[in-house]
Amino acid sequence: MNNPFFENKGPFKLTNLVYNSKTGLKPTQDSNLLSKEILISDIKSLNDATQKDITFFNSVNYKEAAQSTKAYACITKETLDKYLPKNCKKIFVDNVLLITAKVTEQFYPDSIVDDNNFNLKPINEIFTNIISGQNTLVGPNVKIGNNTKIGHNTIIEKNVTIGSNCYIGSNVILRNTYVEDDVHILDSAIVGKKGFGFIPIQSKNYRYPHIGYVHIKKNCEIGSGSTIDRGSLSLTVIGENTYLDNQVHIAHNVKIGNNCIIAGQVGIAGSASLGNNVMIGGQAGVSGHIKIGNNVQIGGGSGVIKNIPDNSKVMGYPARDLKEFIKDYKNER
Amino acid sequence: MNNPFFENKGPFKLTNLVYNSKTGLKPTQDSNLLSKEILISDIKSLNDATQKDITFFNSVNYKEAAQSTKAYACITKETLDKYLPKNCKKIFVDNVLLITAKVTEQFYPDSIVDDNNFNLKPINEIFTNIISGQNTLVGPNVKIGNNTKIGHNTIIEKNVTIGSNCYIGSNVILRNTYVEDDVHILDSAIVGKKGFGFIPIQSKNYRYPHIGYVHIKKNCEIGSGSTIDRGSLSLTVIGENTYLDNQVHIAHNVKIGNNCIIAGQVGIAGSASLGNNVMIGGQAGVSGHIKIGNNVQIGGGSGVIKNIPDNSKVMGYPARDLKEFIKDYKNER
Amino acid sequence: MNNPFFENKGPFKLTNLVYNSKTGLKPTQDSNLLSKEILISDIKSLNDATQKDITFFNSVNYKEAAQSTKAYACITKETLDKYLPKNCKKIFVDNVLLITAKVTEQFYPDSIVDDNNFNLKPINEIFTNIISGQNTLVGPNVKIGNNTKIGHNTIIEKNVTIGSNCYIGSNVILRNTYVEDDVHILDSAIVGKKGFGFIPIQSKNYRYPHIGYVHIKKNCEIGSGSTIDRGSLSLTVIGENTYLDNQVHIAHNVKIGNNCIIAGQVGIAGSASLGNNVMIGGQAGVSGHIKIGNNVQIGGGSGVIKNIPDNSKVMGYPARDLKEFIKDYKNER
Repeated sequence: MNNPFFENKGPFKLTNLVYNSKTGLKPTQDSNLLSKEILISDIKSLNDATQKDITFFNSVNYKEAAQSTKAYACITKETLDKYLPKNCKKIFVDNVLLITAKVTEQFYPDSIVDDNNFNLKPINEIFTNIISGQNTLVGPNVKIGNNTKIGHNTIIEKNVTIGSNCYIGSNVILRNTYVEDDVHILDSAIVGKKGFGFIPIQSKNYRYPHIGYVHIKKNCEIGSGSTIDRGSLSLTVIGENTYLDNQVHIAHNVKIGNNCIIAGQVGIAGSASLGNNVMIGGQAGVSGHIKIGNNVQIGGGSGVIKNIPDNSKVMGYPARDLKEFIKDYKNER
Repeated sequence: MNNPFFENKGPFKLTNLVYNSKTGLKPTQDSNLLSKEILISDIKSLNDATQKDITFFNSVNYKEAAQSTKAYACITKETLDKYLPKNCKKIFVDNVLLITAKVTEQFYPDSIVDDNNFNLKPINEIFTNIISGQNTLVGPNVKIGNNTKIGHNTIIEKNVTIGSNCYIGSNVILRNTYVEDDVHILDSAIVGKKGFGFIPIQSKNYRYPHIGYVHIKKNCEIGSGSTIDRGSLSLTVIGENTYLDNQVHIAHNVKIGNNCIIAGQVGIAGSASLGNNVMIGGQAGVSGHIKIGNNVQIGGGSGVIKNIPDNSKVMGYPARDLKEFIKDYKNER
Repeated sequence: MNNPFFENKGPFKLTNLVYNSKTGLKPTQDSNLLSKEILISDIKSLNDATQKDITFFNSVNYKEAAQSTKAYACITKETLDKYLPKNCKKIFVDNVLLITAKVTEQFYPDSIVDDNNFNLKPINEIFTNIISGQNTLVGPNVKIGNNTKIGHNTIIEKNVTIGSNCYIGSNVILRNTYVEDDVHILDSAIVGKKGFGFIPIQSKNYRYPHIGYVHIKKNCEIGSGSTIDRGSLSLTVIGENTYLDNQVHIAHNVKIGNNCIIAGQVGIAGSASLGNNVMIGGQAGVSGHIKIGNNVQIGGGSGVIKNIPDNSKVMGYPARDLKEFIKDYKNER
């Protein structure tokens, strides 16, 4: 993933990055780790990491990605050691996600909370190529294409690129978002805030950085009051010509394909993915990490808790084949 | 339906309206159609159309309305020809809804998107008979009755009539809405935006015009963060003394009766109708085009996918008789 | 309950309070009631009322609280007489809740509707110890701790105390809320509005006063677009270190414990209570007056309609034991 929005404060020497007062980790006598002092450029997923990156590996579900990772080093636990390449330096810890968060925030300290930027300016002082409403504010690192219209009281906080011929409503809040051409974002939508991801700790949870952004492709429509959270390590993506109705919630890292139609009050939990031409009825929910294929239809109110293959029609909670759902319904009556 | 809010650019000669570069239709040799050149005043539903109007007919479900339509002309498909009166001029097309949209937008070009009106004024510059907050803006074609109070940062965009003794909260967005007396619309509600209706087309959906408005009758309350979309051809109606809780979504063309109580996060899909004295528990959903009678109680979380007769109590997903729902529940435990 | 936010206009002489044009009640010849003319300080619940207070008793479900109430007088119906202490003066009425509402509003006339305060000031004119955005307004009886940051277009209407090191986003609306230290309230959340409580009356419902407030304890996070209503007679409480995701709805009088995690679009109906360490998946709902124990996990999409004991895992609609839910699901496929 490119990261156009969050500044990478690296590179760091591996031992400096891992063993410090932030992580609370003490260096071990592991000569394997200490012998070399290369500079670590970034933290990336198992798949994306290069030989200059550090990664993390916390669940056996990702063992295949672990086996082929190119990462220079990996934050993990001893029980997962066997799945990682021999030449990958392992940093064994008790709480993989907590140490990963603490390492990530050294690279990207600005990505943990959405502290408002307090030096916003009236948008029409900065942009003369667009039509904009009153009380609309804009912050740093924002680009807006020609012939885009933006309503009233909208806040384009920082790290936002908007294409041409877009329409952004009133009371909208945008940050850390890349919007292609001809996109409509309706009133009071909130796009690009950090996801609902943190490490639960009694009495004070630990927030982890969200360095992904939201990518909304061309010709989309995002309904009023909808929320789309940005990704943690990867992106949140809304494919071309996908329409979201009002009060939809799209969690962090979700990938939605092209030409999807998602009705009101639907919720898609973190890291779920949808193919192309998916239709979802109102109030349906999709669990986290679920994969939904192409050309799938999900009935209103459904709760999808397993992967759905291409060309399926499902309904129910839990969602099952539509024909079975209808048959059961008729038997019950 | 009267249309106080969207300007009708008609009348148009029938052939000019139908056969032009917007619709992409070429005139046929159908002398029946071309022989007369009357002026078409408006586009209306099968039921509402007069001898000066054009209508459309796309589904056999509406065959009864088709048989008795008074419309001068009808956009339809050849397979539905037999249901229409002989003297109604038929315009046969492949995609009825697409051509209907393209005809409608010639009458009402301003109703396709909710482009902000950018010449809003501070409300207290225009209205001296009300109490209003700061940063609240008001656009053209707005009327507000005496003793109404309106909060801060609220946008009354255009085409809004508000009665007397109303209370409108802060961060509210209103357009294309007729509000009677003694109505409370709470913070961040969004009323009168166009509905989630469009013709799905690969790579670029086609938005159709929404020329209906929202009619909120007297003594209603609309909860915080709720969204009520305006109708496409007909109205969206909230009956007298009906109360909506927070985060409720009412889609386009929905009709709700009097004295209804609708709890938080309920969703009513497009063109559904509710009678009087209907109570709906939190998070319940009603499918599109469903008819719910008078004095109906719908349990929280229910999904209503069929019509519900008067005086029923239902619960479940799909919703069924409440007693059966409870019996099944007890058996399961 | 202390009431730091709503001014108590009492005390009142009992007969003046009860028999007047607002209640529409005429004094009876009940010498028991009229013989003494003590001053009534407040209206409180059966449990909380002292010998200087009036209370109400409307349902046999609360008979134990009734039996031990210390209230000087009680609004009730004749059929419930036997449960109340002999020395408690009974005021028998047909509609207990309606008369209770009418008595309560004599003590707290400002608590019925959230009429905006229209004399708000720019926050940075009042507070110099915080960092704040543009167009953010603040009203009377507001305190804000050091090092707190508040975004743009936010309205802190009245009766709000915010601790130190808090982060309040943009477009947020706060009223009647006590926020401890280190709390994050994200964009467009609405906290402290009156609950969805009223007495249904044909043609014009009767709103009852909400004199409770919202108490958000330290280290909490409230997600974007969430709504938390204040209590009617008691408080709405969010325990320490509890995190709410986006578009969550918490109704009036709900009590949530510490270290809870509540995912997107969850709804908790009025007067429900949750213990500590409760996890709730996205879109789940909890019915009113339900008690959920400690260490409970509720699956996404569930509908909880009965009390849940400590250490349970439940899922489904209606929610049942998670193992049974999974077993049934596997059998169905």
